[in-house]
Amino acid sequence: MKIGSYAYDEYVHLVKSFHGSLAPGLIIGGFIVDLALRNLPPGEFFDAICETSVCLPDAVQLLTPCTVGNGWLKVVDMGRFAVTLYEKEKGDGIRVYLDSKKLGAWPEFNAWYFKLKPKKEQNFELLMAQIKEAGAGALSMERVRVKPEYTVKRKLGRTAVCPSCGESYPLRDGDSCLACQGRSPYQEA
Amino acid sequence: MKIGSYAYDEYVHLVKSFHGSLAPGLIIGGFIVDLALRNLPPGEFFDAICETSVCLPDAVQLLTPCTVGNGWLKVVDMGRFAVTLYEKEKGDGIRVYLDSKKLGAWPEFNAWYFKLKPKKEQNFELLMAQIKEAGAGALSMERVRVKPEYTVKRKLGRTAVCPSCGESYPLRDGDSCLACQGRSPYQEA
Repeated sequence: MKIGSYAYDEYVHLVKSFHGSLAPGLIIGGFIVDLALRNLPPGEFFDAICETSVCLPDAVQLLTPCTVGNGWLKVVDMGRFAVTLYEKEKGDGIRVYLDSKKLGAWPEFNAWYFKLKPKKEQNFELLMAQIKEAGAGALSMERVRVKPEYTVKRKLGRTAVCPSCGESYPLRDGDSCLACQGRSPYQEA
Repeated sequence: MKIGSYAYDEYVHLVKSFHGSLAPGLIIGGFIVDLALRNLPPGEFFDAICETSVCLPDAVQLLTPCTVGNGWLKVVDMGRFAVTLYEKEKGDGIRVYLDSKKLGAWPEFNAWYFKLKPKKEQNFELLMAQIKEAGAGALSMERVRVKPEYTVKRKLGRTAVCPSCGESYPLRDGDSCLACQGRSPYQEA
């Protein structure tokens, strides 16, 4: 059993090292990305959309060339457990999602996904075994075409020194940087 | 010269492997994260804020336990080249930023940062040499405290099956999932 170009146990090792823990969502995510990779639309380069910010972006970053920092992975957080890989010029893509209608055969997996049990009542080993057994069997896929804004390369554009904080910022944001416009994540000193 | 726990050349290798190319921003980012790690506020666990979505998030993901998928890295895109590592309970942090006032000693680095030359006129080798020579010398740091919303662990909360698409989604988003409320990144079939 392989996940991307890795043996299953190799992938588990990578997940622990990068993500910090063996999260069930990253194992399912591995199967999701693997299935998408095996059904890539034609084209030389692809980008990725991840439909949740929880766990799944790390599976994309581990298994594809797409990362948050290189801009090829976009997180569009709609709380759905799905990944789309799409040809980056025309936007034709394959979307793979966890199909809850298929989970009936794996009750511990189903209970985890729908939060039917408090965490302390979960059987983690059984859960992981059922996720591994299910593999692509818990997934479905569909062809999609992304909206044009996702096929355009983002450009930083011209920059300037913010007259308020003195740091460089993208001029398209206005007369001062977004932090000085009130979007700073920090408390006032 | 080390970047985090890596020798400089090891880090360069990691960057190429994860990010896909030797981006100048990731080398500067390595120095930024390294300086922040060496000046961590007291406390057992820390989270990270990255103030741009371009390049820098990957330096954080390579050098710290914080990733987008595990939620310990938050990208607050204000187009500033800065990273904050902060104690995750109280929010006391150290912010490290590229200090453009210090770039005068490295003209190729300065020209790259302020986009003073078209890309084809840049001398990439000289740029990389100046970035390496500058190291932490091009950076400044300050103590910050993050706003309370950044010290609260995000919770997915209760989920339900969306009556429109049939996929599972977080109930806090409303009566149907955000995709079915019009935020889908895909074109209508």
